[in-house]
Amino acid sequence: MRPQPKKPITARGKVLGGPAPLVCVPLVGKTKEEIRTEARNIPAIAPDAIELRVDAWDFVEETRKALSMIGEVRTIVGELPVILTCRGHWEGGVKKVADEKKFLLYKEAAEAGFVDFIDMELAYGDGKIREILAMLEPTSTPLIISCHDFEKTPSKEMIFSLLGAEIRAGAHVAKFAAMPRSEEDVLSLLSATLMVRRQYPDIPLITMSMGESGAMSRITGGLFGSDLTFAVGSKASAPGQIPVAALRQCLSVIFS
Amino acid sequence: MRPQPKKPITARGKVLGGPAPLVCVPLVGKTKEEIRTEARNIPAIAPDAIELRVDAWDFVEETRKALSMIGEVRTIVGELPVILTCRGHWEGGVKKVADEKKFLLYKEAAEAGFVDFIDMELAYGDGKIREILAMLEPTSTPLIISCHDFEKTPSKEMIFSLLGAEIRAGAHVAKFAAMPRSEEDVLSLLSATLMVRRQYPDIPLITMSMGESGAMSRITGGLFGSDLTFAVGSKASAPGQIPVAALRQCLSVIFS
Repeated sequence: MRPQPKKPITARGKVLGGPAPLVCVPLVGKTKEEIRTEARNIPAIAPDAIELRVDAWDFVEETRKALSMIGEVRTIVGELPVILTCRGHWEGGVKKVADEKKFLLYKEAAEAGFVDFIDMELAYGDGKIREILAMLEPTSTPLIISCHDFEKTPSKEMIFSLLGAEIRAGAHVAKFAAMPRSEEDVLSLLSATLMVRRQYPDIPLITMSMGESGAMSRITGGLFGSDLTFAVGSKASAPGQIPVAALRQCLSVIFS
Repeated sequence: MRPQPKKPITARGKVLGGPAPLVCVPLVGKTKEEIRTEARNIPAIAPDAIELRVDAWDFVEETRKALSMIGEVRTIVGELPVILTCRGHWEGGVKKVADEKKFLLYKEAAEAGFVDFIDMELAYGDGKIREILAMLEPTSTPLIISCHDFEKTPSKEMIFSLLGAEIRAGAHVAKFAAMPRSEEDVLSLLSATLMVRRQYPDIPLITMSMGESGAMSRITGGLFGSDLTFAVGSKASAPGQIPVAALRQCLSVIFS
């Protein structure tokens, strides 16, 4: 039995923090046509959730257009949890997006009931995070607070601190991703995840070690406290992601 | 690239310590008919190696019969590395076998050229190990020195010490298996394996965390220095072993 959080979050029938980690496919298209094509492909891929990486969208700052696109994706994918993410350009985002446009889109998408989770970076700091939590409260949309290091893997203790900071800042879900430079780094990430799961037993977590050598963490992270894993649908959003079908085969062996 | 040993061992075309861990299937039949049936099934299963667990054999102490059976298995399985193991009853062996019978069978099987590796327990101590190393020297049969804990997982430092002791005693291959009582134990086993791989870069290693919660180590151990993984052919020889086909699917994702 993997270590599950005491307060799993159910969205559209899928349990984040249930007996097996959820498989989430990122949509990374730039144009409306690319996004529609990816979305139409989702039912065939059958992930447990999708992440809309709107920082890739040409028109992300045109709030009305972007909101309408999010609604369109919702209609196409149907009853599937949707994570709305406008990743900061400083943490791997595709485009530089103005904060006011980002958070306005978050607000409107949550109010429209189009999305099930919203992701913001720990780097915004406690004040801004409090503001966004208050903004999302009327719609009860859970907030993923995230942190990414594409260069290296911090120490186990530092990863523990960062995830702990996310949780103390009010995260409904805490996320951390790092690039390993050694096999030791991959084990550090898993070990830190487990430490956080023990110390903060309530909150669902999402962690991964990126790149080729970290790919095993996308398969096994669920055993050590990670509740969601990203897999390739059409195109990867980060290095090391595994195609959905192959990932599912491995997960079925481990979480049988 | 997984951390490979500097001195891999090639047996019948298979490399212990190559780019991917070898998949080894244990033969655990008790009677001649059971053993023959298992052996005949091997080409269809297509493992990279087999382990003959002769401690399960009804007739293991009848050296002539046992030797002839080993020869028969060799003929049936053809060009496949064979590990000959008469596991001590105190470490998970099926029957209590007299040491003189065990080591006589080892000697004769090695001299006949029927087997490619021989396994003995670290528990015999340095003196006995030296004697067996000398006995095997004329045939150049590599010796696996092994240690198993079916109750618990020792500390990372203790696992490191035990594998180090095997190597210093003259092991051509060092093996350690332990039962986890927590997710932390599974990570300790992998972490200790990696420490040994770094400190003793030459020697192939075989390590695993047993049971259901350790099963992930049978898939991912190769990333952290383990060069062989046991999988179920007909029947498992230890808890947590995965069927060959499922294991191969997972390995192909990780070691692609």
